Amino acid sequence: MNQSLNKLLSTFNHILDQSIEQTPLHTQLEESMRYSLQAGGKRVRPLLLLATLHMLQPNKYHEGLKTAVALEMVHTYSLIHDDLPAMDNDDLRRGKPTNHKVYGEWLAILAGDALLTKAFEYISNDASLSAEVRVKLITALSQASGHQGMVGGQALDMQSESQAVELPILEQIHLHKTGALIRFAIEAAIIIANVDNETQQQLIKFANHLGIIFQIKDDLLDLFGTTEALGKQTGSDDANEKSTYATLLGYTQAEHILATHVEEAERILASLSEAYNTDDLAYLLKLFYQRQN
Amino acid sequence: MNQSLNKLLSTFNHILDQSIEQTPLHTQLEESMRYSLQAGGKRVRPLLLLATLHMLQPNKYHEGLKTAVALEMVHTYSLIHDDLPAMDNDDLRRGKPTNHKVYGEWLAILAGDALLTKAFEYISNDASLSAEVRVKLITALSQASGHQGMVGGQALDMQSESQAVELPILEQIHLHKTGALIRFAIEAAIIIANVDNETQQQLIKFANHLGIIFQIKDDLLDLFGTTEALGKQTGSDDANEKSTYATLLGYTQAEHILATHVEEAERILASLSEAYNTDDLAYLLKLFYQRQN
Repeated sequence: MNQSLNKLLSTFNHILDQSIEQTPLHTQLEESMRYSLQAGGKRVRPLLLLATLHMLQPNKYHEGLKTAVALEMVHTYSLIHDDLPAMDNDDLRRGKPTNHKVYGEWLAILAGDALLTKAFEYISNDASLSAEVRVKLITALSQASGHQGMVGGQALDMQSESQAVELPILEQIHLHKTGALIRFAIEAAIIIANVDNETQQQLIKFANHLGIIFQIKDDLLDLFGTTEALGKQTGSDDANEKSTYATLLGYTQAEHILATHVEEAERILASLSEAYNTDDLAYLLKLFYQRQN
Repeated sequence: MNQSLNKLLSTFNHILDQSIEQTPLHTQLEESMRYSLQAGGKRVRPLLLLATLHMLQPNKYHEGLKTAVALEMVHTYSLIHDDLPAMDNDDLRRGKPTNHKVYGEWLAILAGDALLTKAFEYISNDASLSAEVRVKLITALSQASGHQGMVGGQALDMQSESQAVELPILEQIHLHKTGALIRFAIEAAIIIANVDNETQQQLIKFANHLGIIFQIKDDLLDLFGTTEALGKQTGSDDANEKSTYATLLGYTQAEHILATHVEEAERILASLSEAYNTDDLAYLLKLFYQRQN
């Protein structure tokens, strides 16, 4: 990772580490919340938010820190609930036992609930932003993560298991299940930075390409990655009889679509680079399609 | 119920019924959310919010409607998750099969997640309130329902099962698990209405008494009510080996403590009645301690 992104990441991690305060109730709830929050993800969503904001207003990217933490909380809660026995039933996540494997099912459900709740508290309490901006961010985050967004995509995904799924349905699943939070990362930077319409439109298109790139790469890695590199079970899509870009289109065609979206995303960055320093976003784009885990 | 409360309730139900819009994803998620939301609870939390606001500003109680719906969404999500096999494992709620019995476990988990998310969207989108008030409400609701509040109380409750629990722990459980949302109902009215400090203090004390009254009554009903009247399994505290006010203190002592809190709450209402019409709150107080389900 380059120096600029490294700095964003370490500032982010510092805030994240302090985000769950202990309560006097003496349960394992906070420990369980922190366990998953600090299990060492790639932090691509918060980095995308902060890098976009840093590009738009280099001296005030700090204004996005708490929203970036909230975004990672929502992502983390969704992983905890998705891993539950009643959902994907995964034992391993990021190379570590999943939350319910360590703390038991009921505490995993509650830790997920509490992280989701905390995300909204974190934005509503952010004194570095005006009340108007906070309200806009909360609306955008709730719509990206609720029944119209991520949770809706997860419901469609679960419903489609053990079924032959056509490409349009698969696209709907990913647009919602993973795409919505990736779009929110960039949308949040736009809400905070208040940029012109043209730049907004380009950034939103960029976000859409990124979402698809992320998912196709995920499918390819599930097919060809190793458990060791991924830190989670590979071949689980196959075991759950899930349709993926790779199984629906074949490896070659999936790679081809991936390349097309990468080209489109690069074209947008080239256009944005006339007014902005797009180095960090270019780096993140590469991270999205070249990642090995 | 008196005429004034009936009017509040029917206005509330009207908004509630329209609160979950359909998405084009063709899953059962929204149906499952509505199933629990419309399963006919007593609506004591939203009524408490609206009655308090109606007392403080009779002509502008409408400003609390969306927050009242959000509060009922949070309460409903908590019931769905609490009823899950990994938690209290209840089959019956409000006389109907619980959410996971109808829709399956994974959809019940997701419906709960989506209702919690929707609650924050609902407040953040409420055009009848200023952004400042919305942000305050979201902070208060997230703290009342998160790891410092309701979810923390549920974690302590689950952890205390099959254990002999002392009275101070039992009080901590109820202060958080049920008390926090009841307090929020009154806190929300205070945030929206902007009342003087003295009235605020009295209302918050009233809310604290109500929370304890609600819980002791719940314990007594679990011990002596019938499944038919309650619409849920009675004796489930006993089956789960839960300590309650009734089992810890005995029936007579629990009834005595209940009466003491009712007297204190009535005293506060008498004092408030010098400046306000407290009829609706007096009615709700009676509903809290005389209810048979």
